[in-house]
Amino acid sequence: MPYRIFVDLATPPDVLELLQQGTRGHQLLFPHKPISSVLAEPGQDPQFATAEIAFGQPDPVAIANATRLKWIHVSSSGITRYDNPQFRALMAERKIAVTNSADVYQEACAVHLFSFMLAQARNLPGALKSRAANGTPEWHALRGANMTLGGQTVLILGYGAIGRRLVELLRPFNMKIMVYRRQARGDEGVPVVTPGQLAQTLATEADHIVNILPDNAESRHFFNASRFARLKSGAIFYNIGRGTTVDQEALLDALRSGGLKAAWLDVTDPEPLPENHPLLAQANCFITPHVAGGHVDEAKTLVRHFLRNFEQFVNGKPLFDRVM
Amino acid sequence: MPYRIFVDLATPPDVLELLQQGTRGHQLLFPHKPISSVLAEPGQDPQFATAEIAFGQPDPVAIANATRLKWIHVSSSGITRYDNPQFRALMAERKIAVTNSADVYQEACAVHLFSFMLAQARNLPGALKSRAANGTPEWHALRGANMTLGGQTVLILGYGAIGRRLVELLRPFNMKIMVYRRQARGDEGVPVVTPGQLAQTLATEADHIVNILPDNAESRHFFNASRFARLKSGAIFYNIGRGTTVDQEALLDALRSGGLKAAWLDVTDPEPLPENHPLLAQANCFITPHVAGGHVDEAKTLVRHFLRNFEQFVNGKPLFDRVM
Repeated sequence: MPYRIFVDLATPPDVLELLQQGTRGHQLLFPHKPISSVLAEPGQDPQFATAEIAFGQPDPVAIANATRLKWIHVSSSGITRYDNPQFRALMAERKIAVTNSADVYQEACAVHLFSFMLAQARNLPGALKSRAANGTPEWHALRGANMTLGGQTVLILGYGAIGRRLVELLRPFNMKIMVYRRQARGDEGVPVVTPGQLAQTLATEADHIVNILPDNAESRHFFNASRFARLKSGAIFYNIGRGTTVDQEALLDALRSGGLKAAWLDVTDPEPLPENHPLLAQANCFITPHVAGGHVDEAKTLVRHFLRNFEQFVNGKPLFDRVM
Repeated sequence: MPYRIFVDLATPPDVLELLQQGTRGHQLLFPHKPISSVLAEPGQDPQFATAEIAFGQPDPVAIANATRLKWIHVSSSGITRYDNPQFRALMAERKIAVTNSADVYQEACAVHLFSFMLAQARNLPGALKSRAANGTPEWHALRGANMTLGGQTVLILGYGAIGRRLVELLRPFNMKIMVYRRQARGDEGVPVVTPGQLAQTLATEADHIVNILPDNAESRHFFNASRFARLKSGAIFYNIGRGTTVDQEALLDALRSGGLKAAWLDVTDPEPLPENHPLLAQANCFITPHVAGGHVDEAKTLVRHFLRNFEQFVNGKPLFDRVM
């Protein structure tokens, strides 16, 4: 049977063509104003209620009213706006499958995080500005502050697709790698830190704190004043998850007091931070504007991932990246 | 028998103590003005002629006059000022062993190069300055220009300790890795590009050109106008070897014409470049001031490496990092 697929995703001509080819025989519905940001709030579109499949960032209210809906493919890795008990219950009751695009962003996010770790280790922001002559005190100071990662400990919070890939990339660097999970499942391949052990690990072991926690009720301000208060000397904080998982006031205090040596953030709350936000003026805080998942041909990768799942859906096979 | 060891190396108190402990029973000789840069030209010191061992960057002329010399341990990875047929012949004739400090700098240099590759792939210099809001054209442009390294080809020129370590670090990134050598030895573990194949590889395969060539007569201006003229579209050039291996006029032309997408240099000729040098104003040229080998406790690592070799020397065992 031909499906009606509602697509709210920016689709340049070549991407649209790819999508049309891969869904031939089915009907694509586009909103009048396509949604381009993963964090924007989409409006509602009357066509939506007639679709069996939604691809993009469909509005939860519209979903509740779309009685023919069978499958939602979210065009991001994060599923914040859907990740609550009410929505999950609705999906279960209506037998709507929800998948996300974790596979699409895993590599880019892991590589972006890695670029943060290495830029920090080699002090690139400072070194690229310096014109120090060999042998001068400034030059010795620059060289002497550089690091190699070897022998240091990295703690990864949020151990999904991105975290697993990051562990693979970190393997050759001779670091101690630990992951934080509510409960160890035994298949992590690296030591697991459980909630009861977290404070101790942060205080005595973690040189690099990698926050990839998703945004949900439990993770809101997970990194608060109390967690930032007792960190290992020289600790560095990275966030490529969601800005809401960090109490930014507490982060600022830790950066000012020296409790944290530096922070590297791809996400903030809100995005972007307002012009006068003190984190922007903090010299040991480095911010990229939510681009960790970005990569050449991202829209094509997204569509290919959807089409791979669409084929599974049409053939009644299990969907990839299913989250509900 | 007690040896006389001439040391021209910056030695803060804790490093000096380490050196003294490790050479107890022997005599350390220090120049009046210690040499701190690996590229500085050391003066001559009358004590030098009485030493059996030299640790640092001893002057080639002084070496020629030091008749008791048995072993020179160079405190850098590069051995430019010694790497010529005359000097090699003199060492062979006088049976003087020459070792370098490649082991000390291998990890830091490989990690530094890696930080360049990832900062370029994730466009960190641009992204750290951007305050683009999600969904804006600037934001889409930033995300869309980001890369993951996967599927790209890296060509490493100069396959010593640093190159080998870099290959290990690159393994998980799903790149095609090739190394340039005058002759394949068969133990490289990666495809070897020989001189006859280089032009073709640069023109059609190499997305990332990693220059770790040492400075010697053959490598002077190895990267000249003719080599920069035919590169694969989007190629990026990295140099952590020596500045003299690059014709900087030709590099500038390639960066201006778009023949090269970007260059990341830790070494230049001279160092630092003069204030008005056009490479400094070139937006797609990124320069750190010869700090690739730098790392926390570098002087201690250097001394530990020397002491490990000193023990070998005293016991008549083969020296590590022997280059002549």
